[in-house]
Amino acid sequence: MKNNNAITPRNQDFAKWYTDVVRAAHLADYSSVKGCIVMEPNGYAIWEKMQSILDKEFKKLGHVNCQMPMLIPENLLKKESDLVEGFAPEVAWVTEGGKKELEEKLCIRPTSETLFCDYYATHIKSHRDLPKLYNQWCNVMRWEKETRPFLRGREFLWQEGHTIHETAAEAEKETDQMMGIYNWFHNEILAMPAIRGKKTEKEKFSGAVYTLTNEALMYNGVALQLGTSHYFGQKFSKAYGVTFTNKENKEDYPYQTSWGTTTRMIGGLIMVHSDDYGLVLPPRIAPKQVVIIPIGNDSNIIAKAEELEKKLIDQDICTYIDRTDKSPGFKFAEAEVNGIPIRIEIGSRDLNNNVIVFARRDTREKITVSLDTDLVSYTKELLETIQKDMYNRAKQRRDELTFEAHNLTEMENILNKQPGFIHAMWCGNQECEEKIKEIKGCKSRCILEDAEAIDDVCVCCGKEAKHHVVWGIQY
Amino acid sequence: MKNNNAITPRNQDFAKWYTDVVRAAHLADYSSVKGCIVMEPNGYAIWEKMQSILDKEFKKLGHVNCQMPMLIPENLLKKESDLVEGFAPEVAWVTEGGKKELEEKLCIRPTSETLFCDYYATHIKSHRDLPKLYNQWCNVMRWEKETRPFLRGREFLWQEGHTIHETAAEAEKETDQMMGIYNWFHNEILAMPAIRGKKTEKEKFSGAVYTLTNEALMYNGVALQLGTSHYFGQKFSKAYGVTFTNKENKEDYPYQTSWGTTTRMIGGLIMVHSDDYGLVLPPRIAPKQVVIIPIGNDSNIIAKAEELEKKLIDQDICTYIDRTDKSPGFKFAEAEVNGIPIRIEIGSRDLNNNVIVFARRDTREKITVSLDTDLVSYTKELLETIQKDMYNRAKQRRDELTFEAHNLTEMENILNKQPGFIHAMWCGNQECEEKIKEIKGCKSRCILEDAEAIDDVCVCCGKEAKHHVVWGIQY
Repeated sequence: MKNNNAITPRNQDFAKWYTDVVRAAHLADYSSVKGCIVMEPNGYAIWEKMQSILDKEFKKLGHVNCQMPMLIPENLLKKESDLVEGFAPEVAWVTEGGKKELEEKLCIRPTSETLFCDYYATHIKSHRDLPKLYNQWCNVMRWEKETRPFLRGREFLWQEGHTIHETAAEAEKETDQMMGIYNWFHNEILAMPAIRGKKTEKEKFSGAVYTLTNEALMYNGVALQLGTSHYFGQKFSKAYGVTFTNKENKEDYPYQTSWGTTTRMIGGLIMVHSDDYGLVLPPRIAPKQVVIIPIGNDSNIIAKAEELEKKLIDQDICTYIDRTDKSPGFKFAEAEVNGIPIRIEIGSRDLNNNVIVFARRDTREKITVSLDTDLVSYTKELLETIQKDMYNRAKQRRDELTFEAHNLTEMENILNKQPGFIHAMWCGNQECEEKIKEIKGCKSRCILEDAEAIDDVCVCCGKEAKHHVVWGIQY
Repeated sequence: MKNNNAITPRNQDFAKWYTDVVRAAHLADYSSVKGCIVMEPNGYAIWEKMQSILDKEFKKLGHVNCQMPMLIPENLLKKESDLVEGFAPEVAWVTEGGKKELEEKLCIRPTSETLFCDYYATHIKSHRDLPKLYNQWCNVMRWEKETRPFLRGREFLWQEGHTIHETAAEAEKETDQMMGIYNWFHNEILAMPAIRGKKTEKEKFSGAVYTLTNEALMYNGVALQLGTSHYFGQKFSKAYGVTFTNKENKEDYPYQTSWGTTTRMIGGLIMVHSDDYGLVLPPRIAPKQVVIIPIGNDSNIIAKAEELEKKLIDQDICTYIDRTDKSPGFKFAEAEVNGIPIRIEIGSRDLNNNVIVFARRDTREKITVSLDTDLVSYTKELLETIQKDMYNRAKQRRDELTFEAHNLTEMENILNKQPGFIHAMWCGNQECEEKIKEIKGCKSRCILEDAEAIDDVCVCCGKEAKHHVVWGIQY
């Protein structure tokens, strides 16, 4: 197998390598609308699998899906001042409809807190109407200046959960619980060792009381926010006039949360796991887990391929035979660039020797396996091994790029050499956060609430430290 | 059980009855944006089930999902003249983004032929790249003046398949095949006896060579288009410059199709099956098929309910126990208005008599069933009986409202009495179609291509008849 010449080596130009992988694996393409992508079938299939796994977990916990309109009237958006400040600069406005200028302009939703509050305001009257555990899968739009496929786009797909509760404790529990689901998903399914923490005041969601986040480190040491869960307290219910009669028969404002993950996770998968030969997918998220490539058309080869395909599909392993008339070498390369975790090659000579060949995508290792083996169990175990190995390699890479700083000079030295996660103590003062940002745009990723202190003083001002923070340069 | 007073009787005011059912069953609500609805969890769950059933069928036939941008630049929309003529009057335009006026305005997709063609133009080079069998599930926007929940809205959800082929024969086969899937879905899953036919030139999709359609008759005799499948020939590929090198190594234009179904089908379900007590859902599309209502809290009642719930769920029958603290009467009414096909009541006295009670939503019949019965088989069979009975009742109603006309006076007399499907012969002349439309807006629903002639002459002009057409007043 030769390197696919169309892909720029990762160590040569990471940004170019990234877009080369997106293109070569047919995940997405640019469209005629600046900043909006076409999600091609290979990319969309990953999103479909993400949806199906997450949606099942959401529903197990009692959440239900709904669908709000994609447009928000200007006056509705403006009701919560923090939210409008955060989003107004980056919304797209519809001003004409049906050949007429609109009386009030409508923005395409950048997020849907306003719409959910508007709905809750008319549908919640009593504590008996609570909680509502709603979620929606939809597209949103933010008029970003710099865009990159999956990582930052004007339009992207996501899910946004919006729940509303009787008590603060219940809403805070929900905020935490959903971050737990995300953390499980990012670690166990996407094989990305994600750090869970709390955003600083400066970095939290516009309008939230606090924001929990999952942060992952990409192969090049740049950080990516993978999912967030916000606790709103009564801020939105007060701004939008959502009230209910509580158990003491008194009028009160309910407590809210919202939580979301996006197609950006696909970008994360690429930047954590992929290599110079194209996409590498963890088996649990790969839409196609096994490809069988018959070498030649002998009937015993095809029979063996079909027998194995059937057995694997019966065990819910997503398997297909590449039956196209391309050459085996071309098929190997295609399976490789598309990130199919296991490629099984079945050839005449091998069959005569009572063996077939398994090729792992992650290590590119070829393993000759006797036909006397229980091939289904072997495949299942190999998929799990690949999943575990990918997680461990990603964790090892993250650990190699994780540093500790005790003063600004140390922080600067680290960042000048190599971006990564930098653990450092912080006084809690926003001025220090601003000052640290001057070093190559380094931002607080999250506060580790339960972590031990690594110093007594703030990495920036030297005054008393309050928080153990992970810092990094972000996408 | 008393009639739910909040629902206007169907025979008194059909339109009001319809919106009352939508509201009472919590399917949808109006939003702050005129013409855009909130799909509430009960309504969205029906759409999710429609999606999962259809998507599986699409994929079995080799289709893959993708996602195009929601915005279309003005110049791209304008490339195909029929399409732009058809859709331009009813699009919404984005003219501002990120606080700046846009250089070129962008419309929110009313349909995505233009975007698919734009993509195909750069991704199809050779016959080896064909066919492409793409589909997307998404939201679209059409700036309608009159709107009604599910039936006609400014924003709605749908799937749009867009396929592209080497030959006309292949594309025509696809157009027909997908109409077959829709027909199966409407008849077998939604229990709506749908008539399959071809649209006239006047009624076909803007830009299509021809359009196939599935038409159903609502309880009040008004027709509803449930799904369409279009054959485009080379019209779009020529307009958008999509070319490929064919097997003879010559440059050629490929052949295209598109096909779609929408959330409007939910409106159809209501208007065909529901009654004065609320929603009635065919079991195969009901998100919740069985509700078990324990009457009282005795441990043997709860144990029986839980045992039965588990057994039914194990057989993939979507079942839940209503464990809320509402009264049994309230729970019965709620299950009824929400259209749960089977309600199982478990009470102390009944248990002592070794029986439980099954209530059918469609007929509101109560059946006392011995506990010695195999309850799982009984439930399965009852669900199938309800499905079949609902189809037959809908078909009977449709047949009662199906008429034959041989001249305009007959047509007028029918329509003055009662709307319905009217079979009548047609010369093929658009002037006659226009003239018929003057009778209460009656339009051709579809041409029945294989049906026998019922007359020699056109119902309107009396000249030679060419087509057997079904006419009706539409939503």
